[in-house]
Amino acid sequence: MNFSSKLIEDAVGQISKLPGIGKKSALRLVLHLLKEESESTQLLCTSLLKLRAEIKYCRSCHNVSDSELCSICTNHNRDNSVICVVEEIPDVMAIENTNHYQGQYHVLGGVISPIDGIGPSELNIESLILRIQKEESIKEIILALSATMQGDTTAFYISKKLKPYNLKISTIARGIAIGGELEYTDEVTLGRSIATRIEYQQ
Amino acid sequence: MNFSSKLIEDAVGQISKLPGIGKKSALRLVLHLLKEESESTQLLCTSLLKLRAEIKYCRSCHNVSDSELCSICTNHNRDNSVICVVEEIPDVMAIENTNHYQGQYHVLGGVISPIDGIGPSELNIESLILRIQKEESIKEIILALSATMQGDTTAFYISKKLKPYNLKISTIARGIAIGGELEYTDEVTLGRSIATRIEYQQ
Repeated sequence: MNFSSKLIEDAVGQISKLPGIGKKSALRLVLHLLKEESESTQLLCTSLLKLRAEIKYCRSCHNVSDSELCSICTNHNRDNSVICVVEEIPDVMAIENTNHYQGQYHVLGGVISPIDGIGPSELNIESLILRIQKEESIKEIILALSATMQGDTTAFYISKKLKPYNLKISTIARGIAIGGELEYTDEVTLGRSIATRIEYQQ
Repeated sequence: MNFSSKLIEDAVGQISKLPGIGKKSALRLVLHLLKEESESTQLLCTSLLKLRAEIKYCRSCHNVSDSELCSICTNHNRDNSVICVVEEIPDVMAIENTNHYQGQYHVLGGVISPIDGIGPSELNIESLILRIQKEESIKEIILALSATMQGDTTAFYISKKLKPYNLKISTIARGIAIGGELEYTDEVTLGRSIATRIEYQQ
């Protein structure tokens, strides 16, 4: 692509490094920024640089945070007896947005995947066990991991590790999605949703 | 959406102001930047701020430029006898990418659209006429405007204005696209492509 301006070429090059943004979309964003007041570019860059410089990771649950401990860990209205173990930070936000969970979280930072060189020591599993040893209030661990082989392996590994602590260990339900039609559900999911059927709530 | 971090919320808010980027995509971009080295955020912001601070518009053709005159206007290898009139800056890049045009450009900055309050005086039409009066080398004006009512109105207005200067005025061909099938071409385009048929090149 010929941009006839080194400045535009550089900006397009940088923006198109972001995931899911090609050169054409990047150019559209650049020309949008040029049309807007220069203040909007400044606000955008200030917020990104501030984020990158000041973001912290909660030393208890490893979620993103503005301070040493995140707003969920320090919230006294939340249930400290349950920890929901998730893979990544967006999973916390996804569960928070359901408004169906009031407990604590623990972000693993990934799943066990030998093919990618990720073993248990690369994940925040040790810190989960330390948390359980330290905080006596914890009664239940919910494993909210992906329904993939890696997710299942990780869940199995963690459940083994947690065995000595005599906790209730649960996993989020797998089955057909709300609004999903039986006919179009894959066989594995459908099979599992029959095997793990629950009593009908009347 | 609950971000549990003011820094992330701010960054997502700023990014999702960009066209075509919603809150979820913005969050994905923010988390991507957090995963990368902080240097990549700095490079991105530096290039955007530099672009916004240093970008110029060519005083001859109104294209984006790194200096007073753009690299197309100052290129002595290009044909100075033809000016291609386009609506916006991306149109210049689109035509440049075809490698089928070696002349000069003139960016109007839009089209005449009374409903949006854009009259001829809001566009770079006066400067086009001044260019024609000043540069005696100009022999042809190509009107490469959108095939819309506004584009046609603008083309008509400009052609009227240019009448006294005894130039060749042409417009880019309208017709079915290369690879397009007759059956799926709309009637107006098809009708026009028959009316403006050209001799078959053997």
